[in-house]
Amino acid sequence: MSKLFEELQPILDKDMALNTALTLLDWDNKTLAPEKSIEYTAKVMGILSDEAFRSFVNPEVRAILAKLEEHKEELEDNEKAILKKLLKDYEKMEKIPPEENREFSELEAVAGGIWAKAKNNDNFAEFAPTLEKVIHFQKKFAGYRKKGDEKIYDIVLSDYEECFNTEMLDAFFNKVKEEIVPLIKEVSARRDQIDKSYNALSYDVKKQEEFGKYIAEYVGFDFKKGVLAASEHPFTTNLHNHDVRITTHYYENDLESSIFSVIHEAGHAIYEMQVADELTQTPVGAGTSMGMHESQSRFFENVIGRSEEFWTPLYPKLQETFKEQLADISLEQFIAGINKSVPSLIRTEADELTYTLHIIIRYEMEKMFMENEIDIMKLPELWNQKYEEYLGITPPSDKDGILQDVHWSLGAFGYFPSYALGSAVAAQIYYHIKSIMPFEEYLKEGNLAPIREYLKEHIHRFGMTKNTNEFLMEMMGEELNADYYVRYLKEKYTKVYGL
Amino acid sequence: MSKLFEELQPILDKDMALNTALTLLDWDNKTLAPEKSIEYTAKVMGILSDEAFRSFVNPEVRAILAKLEEHKEELEDNEKAILKKLLKDYEKMEKIPPEENREFSELEAVAGGIWAKAKNNDNFAEFAPTLEKVIHFQKKFAGYRKKGDEKIYDIVLSDYEECFNTEMLDAFFNKVKEEIVPLIKEVSARRDQIDKSYNALSYDVKKQEEFGKYIAEYVGFDFKKGVLAASEHPFTTNLHNHDVRITTHYYENDLESSIFSVIHEAGHAIYEMQVADELTQTPVGAGTSMGMHESQSRFFENVIGRSEEFWTPLYPKLQETFKEQLADISLEQFIAGINKSVPSLIRTEADELTYTLHIIIRYEMEKMFMENEIDIMKLPELWNQKYEEYLGITPPSDKDGILQDVHWSLGAFGYFPSYALGSAVAAQIYYHIKSIMPFEEYLKEGNLAPIREYLKEHIHRFGMTKNTNEFLMEMMGEELNADYYVRYLKEKYTKVYGL
Repeated sequence: MSKLFEELQPILDKDMALNTALTLLDWDNKTLAPEKSIEYTAKVMGILSDEAFRSFVNPEVRAILAKLEEHKEELEDNEKAILKKLLKDYEKMEKIPPEENREFSELEAVAGGIWAKAKNNDNFAEFAPTLEKVIHFQKKFAGYRKKGDEKIYDIVLSDYEECFNTEMLDAFFNKVKEEIVPLIKEVSARRDQIDKSYNALSYDVKKQEEFGKYIAEYVGFDFKKGVLAASEHPFTTNLHNHDVRITTHYYENDLESSIFSVIHEAGHAIYEMQVADELTQTPVGAGTSMGMHESQSRFFENVIGRSEEFWTPLYPKLQETFKEQLADISLEQFIAGINKSVPSLIRTEADELTYTLHIIIRYEMEKMFMENEIDIMKLPELWNQKYEEYLGITPPSDKDGILQDVHWSLGAFGYFPSYALGSAVAAQIYYHIKSIMPFEEYLKEGNLAPIREYLKEHIHRFGMTKNTNEFLMEMMGEELNADYYVRYLKEKYTKVYGL
Repeated sequence: MSKLFEELQPILDKDMALNTALTLLDWDNKTLAPEKSIEYTAKVMGILSDEAFRSFVNPEVRAILAKLEEHKEELEDNEKAILKKLLKDYEKMEKIPPEENREFSELEAVAGGIWAKAKNNDNFAEFAPTLEKVIHFQKKFAGYRKKGDEKIYDIVLSDYEECFNTEMLDAFFNKVKEEIVPLIKEVSARRDQIDKSYNALSYDVKKQEEFGKYIAEYVGFDFKKGVLAASEHPFTTNLHNHDVRITTHYYENDLESSIFSVIHEAGHAIYEMQVADELTQTPVGAGTSMGMHESQSRFFENVIGRSEEFWTPLYPKLQETFKEQLADISLEQFIAGINKSVPSLIRTEADELTYTLHIIIRYEMEKMFMENEIDIMKLPELWNQKYEEYLGITPPSDKDGILQDVHWSLGAFGYFPSYALGSAVAAQIYYHIKSIMPFEEYLKEGNLAPIREYLKEHIHRFGMTKNTNEFLMEMMGEELNADYYVRYLKEKYTKVYGL
């Protein structure tokens, strides 16, 4: 450690420790804590969050950061990356007046509940005033950080992915729309070609659990550094690179759901487990962005996990586990089943082909309401029009339409595009990896280690010290390019549907 | 809240939040965290502990406490109890020089590992230098707190139970020795009278888990406010009264072990769950002492859980669960089995009758080495002599002798007597409850609610605002009296062995 940095270290340590505790409290709350616990545990989390905020945003820390910035050239490389990250975080937090921040925290604390209730009652009007307030706060907060004629939406986009802005995303999404919407129509017309009724038979949950554990380990999830548990919605969280936790949800009448959740979350987890030891427990010791993270989970879930090569050695084991249900289902039928595409209303249940259309709809709406004044009550109608236009289906109700996702209630505008970016980056990495190693052979041999090793060496170990485009550029001499994604989807669905 | 107290509240809140986080980290570490996690999580725990210490032991807090003490009469009752507790804690911490405290923390961090290794290698000499240092620190720390001609051992005893001192414990243990040692000899001669070989048959662990969950709920453990998990050694922990967690360990060839662990830990848990809402998350919001806590767990485990009345409605369910193994074992045989007494080497496996002798041995040794200079290498011999004298058996090795317990490696001298006190208080409460309600009838009906309710009203809800003798005095007009315990053991074992 450089001499200069020593003054900052105790502050970073404390911040790390408080945030690790908060992460564990959150994990515990979602997986194990008893029903009535949260009432009092919420108080604990509130106090620790406040403490973390106050011990970071204060004049003493400001002065240390300023001094470090002045002597930047004397810092080691990782320290430079940490300083850059802290200055960015600091600027973001510092510009928001504390009382407005508290007001928003209070709104945030209830907004999720109001959204859930409105969704449950299938009544957008119940959520509308809250959504309006959340949008108002987020626009105001972004406004405080605005430089020159920067767009408000660009500011929040960059919180999730440094490389994002509306110009780049417009081009990206337009390309996808142009190429994929016609493909969806074609595939949609052939939807009855694939019968996957086997997937909705009854599958013993205990056996699903055992297979889930098996497949997590198979793709490279290290149980000496990780935990797999059950929760309402699947997620990944980590205390540090030696303690990364994933969850899934088992449904008796949906075999695929937990299998692909486990592979998806294991992809996130492998990223975190492979961050370098010298970076973990520092401010840059995790995956570099939401978009890059999602690229890793989708690479494992879709590129690897939905391929015939991956299942060639593995499918007999699944058949053996569920003899009764799968004895007559061939590997070919299973592969067709897990890649079946049907335009649907719910993003989280969407297949790989139609998924990005769900994102485009949200992106277009966010861009619109972050940049313009809107009549909040007109949003559901707009939502439904876009579903009709892009996916050919109209939500029969708000519950299956605009109320389906939690994100907006949390003020997480700009988050959705990272899901789509993840798919695109995954496809780009796929063509690159295929060009440098016998990818399909490895999958057929059940040997994923060289693939994981490559990702570790070129992405994972660096944590946040590089951004998405830097990674891509160094790996393949090219930044994000939507062509790969379009090519991937076309090749894949041409094959699946024999177009 | 009184006006004066408002200044203290943020300090208490922060302390509570940090300690709750530490409690969860510790629980997680013992039940769920992956094998390699602790390496980095230890750092998190160290930082949070330091933060808790530093935010409590500082001149600002000292000044607030002094001011509150000055205006004590203006405080509300619970605030007075909190102040008293804080002053006691403060005095204890303040008198230890920080650098010595840190030195001891460092020793403590390795001592457990050194003890475990020495135990594993069955070699006391490996642990001796560490034990010597731990004793040295604890004597020195107690010395800093010594007032007048107070005994060093009395100072550490009072940390675990306000009502403890050597004078009182000498009288208590002498009485027990005098009356119980002859009874043990008598019972020991008849050990073959009871056949409990059924207990070591093979019992499916999944079924044990199900029964464990059932019996926890049966005795009153509220799963909406609690969690039951598995760990190496059973324990209870709590974040607050709405989140109390117990563990057990399942052994395939020992049916009793997990059943009585669950009832024991549920007893601890019910105490914590019944602390008043206005006290939980305050410094006096938990069980009042180790001794009182142990009285509640033993009341549930032994007084209730090993009685024929308790098993009358329950035993058919156990038989049904383990048809093959228990079909031919009558309720009478089962009751005799769970109450069988055989002098043995290991405290944690001891039966109710011989248990206190294990404690007396440790008490006598602690008193000796806390008050006198000792030759550390002579301790194993002394240990073995005492086992021969009181229990009629000599440990064949240190592993089953002086190295069996973790407590001394942690510096927890004065802790052991609280286990014995717990048994005595449980017996005293038993005779009292029997005199005011149809105790046996309630057990036979499987109706434990009135018993729990009584304990809640007279003990649990008060948290630490009263001490053990105050509770006893208010319930039955009498302080701790060892006669009840002696009477209880005599009555019970006369019946079990038909003496």
